[in-house]
Amino acid sequence: MRITDDLLLALSWDDAQGELVLLDQRLLPEKRVYMRYITLDGVFGAIRSMVVRGAPVIGIAAAYAMVLGSRNLPDETVAFFSGLHTQAAHLASARPTAVNLKWAVDRMVRNAESRRGASILEIQAAMLAEAKKIHAEDEAICLGIGHTLLPLLREGMRILTHCNAGQLATSRYGTALSPIYLALEKGMSLRVYADETRPLLQGSALTAFELHAVGADVTVICDNMAATVMSQGKVDLCVVGCDRVAANGDTANKIGTLNVAILAKHYGIPFYVAAPTPTIDMGCPCGARIPIEERDEDEVSTRFGTRTVPMGVKVYNPAFDVTPSGLITGIATERGMILPPFDAGIRGLLG
Amino acid sequence: MRITDDLLLALSWDDAQGELVLLDQRLLPEKRVYMRYITLDGVFGAIRSMVVRGAPVIGIAAAYAMVLGSRNLPDETVAFFSGLHTQAAHLASARPTAVNLKWAVDRMVRNAESRRGASILEIQAAMLAEAKKIHAEDEAICLGIGHTLLPLLREGMRILTHCNAGQLATSRYGTALSPIYLALEKGMSLRVYADETRPLLQGSALTAFELHAVGADVTVICDNMAATVMSQGKVDLCVVGCDRVAANGDTANKIGTLNVAILAKHYGIPFYVAAPTPTIDMGCPCGARIPIEERDEDEVSTRFGTRTVPMGVKVYNPAFDVTPSGLITGIATERGMILPPFDAGIRGLLG
Repeated sequence: MRITDDLLLALSWDDAQGELVLLDQRLLPEKRVYMRYITLDGVFGAIRSMVVRGAPVIGIAAAYAMVLGSRNLPDETVAFFSGLHTQAAHLASARPTAVNLKWAVDRMVRNAESRRGASILEIQAAMLAEAKKIHAEDEAICLGIGHTLLPLLREGMRILTHCNAGQLATSRYGTALSPIYLALEKGMSLRVYADETRPLLQGSALTAFELHAVGADVTVICDNMAATVMSQGKVDLCVVGCDRVAANGDTANKIGTLNVAILAKHYGIPFYVAAPTPTIDMGCPCGARIPIEERDEDEVSTRFGTRTVPMGVKVYNPAFDVTPSGLITGIATERGMILPPFDAGIRGLLG
Repeated sequence: MRITDDLLLALSWDDAQGELVLLDQRLLPEKRVYMRYITLDGVFGAIRSMVVRGAPVIGIAAAYAMVLGSRNLPDETVAFFSGLHTQAAHLASARPTAVNLKWAVDRMVRNAESRRGASILEIQAAMLAEAKKIHAEDEAICLGIGHTLLPLLREGMRILTHCNAGQLATSRYGTALSPIYLALEKGMSLRVYADETRPLLQGSALTAFELHAVGADVTVICDNMAATVMSQGKVDLCVVGCDRVAANGDTANKIGTLNVAILAKHYGIPFYVAAPTPTIDMGCPCGARIPIEERDEDEVSTRFGTRTVPMGVKVYNPAFDVTPSGLITGIATERGMILPPFDAGIRGLLG
């Protein structure tokens, strides 16, 4: 029995209207509001403002955004492709860290370029088909990652995760949460600790929300409580998603992931990264080369209309951190588990 | 030149009115509201609800609360002392982790008991004098801790601290922040990273507030960013306060301190605990014996009137954690620095 819920799809494509529908994740858990997009700029804004977030689903949204953008381009080949490349560069700049965004945009451009010479209508139709393919592939990837990690889970196991790498971050099932959904479908009993994940609280607002929605046993902790629950022997395994994996296995993910990885190492707890292969960036040799987005100070200093940091005080707000591969037990992809040494493992898997 | 500010005193005793004045720290940084207390129960509520917080100043507030409580006891020796012991037990239960509360209450009871047979008025006068002595001693202790730690500081050093162990947690100067104030008074230039310290944000609302008030260079980070700033080589030293130090050096402090200690060890950064000797509990052999207060889930799940954790989801909210002595570089007291092995060092210092 599939327990993930269509009512919690982060993204869907409305074929009848030709519109992209996004669940506004900024309003969860209090409100479930679906936004409809008909322009590339609209989706650009949704990605940047985190209406939609999570590396895999950002990639899917970007693919559909390219479809939407192509509708506003001239019906003439040279001008069409010139505009398409401009749109692609613009869209790819919405957020710098997750490589899926650029990966999806590049794939859409390659798809269109491969049909250069066909009619614009044909190219647009092929682009929509390609976006749907990326979308469908993501669901298969998530299931594949779930099956890669599922053998690690045992009845009664306690799992700690950070941020949200679940249904809401992907097409369905999620990456880090996929094995948990699969285990729950088998009737396994698990306990999940969800780091709340400051500043934007994706752990409490999204991970706890989607797991609780399917009846999972989930407990929210503040990020700074992870060491305590680990020290109490309450965590058997950590699993997180990722926004970019470098060729050597260094992994960028939501800020705070590095903390979890260091704590897990200190307590001897396995630490797994759930990584769709499109999130692995062979062009990026190591973590130091992954661009880390810094976001507005207001995310930290002002919350729900109340200022929590005194006026004039500096705030540092990196949205991601990089976990060196040496802290990672395994990188779970849809094609199987990569174990250290990661550089060779990644080359072997993707080669 | 003394740079700490009387306008930011967490606590003062109004001799003319015989009232205890507390700065309501829950309203900082937005509002500076002073509350006046004339009953023990009022101060009990202020301690429990964290109008006043920070182990040292809780101890001072409790001492004055015993003075206030003694005013409502019968003017007859047996009944007075019976009531005093009942009040003491009640007051000491307001918060379980910080030992200073019980230490101050016990000291006030001992002071009164030492005058058993004198008039109740004389006993009450002696109790007020003892409370003022505890208050004055704390200021001397804070200065002493500052001077113990000051030799570690160098021009341009970057210091990370967690929660608030500053002026607002003590009579003046603070414990962990005391050397920073002393260094600033000498014209030294330092940079402080303040963990915001979820759930109640004492790092941003109090530490950043009081340091910014004196012109210090302070940057707020979310707790989960500490590993990132350490990995970037931006932290030279960590210093935190404490709520109770066990006889073996294990240290209870605000939740999240253990995370910082593990991260500091991982990155080879010295990690110091600033501990007034009254915070050292020789009756407590090790950290496992320190009672850890768990506070209301609402502190995590609801903030500023907005629910951040979905209804029905469990929340774990320990207010403190225990850092094993093995992660601590040194324990700085007003009588000097204790270095490992801490059990012998503590016995030597207090013996």
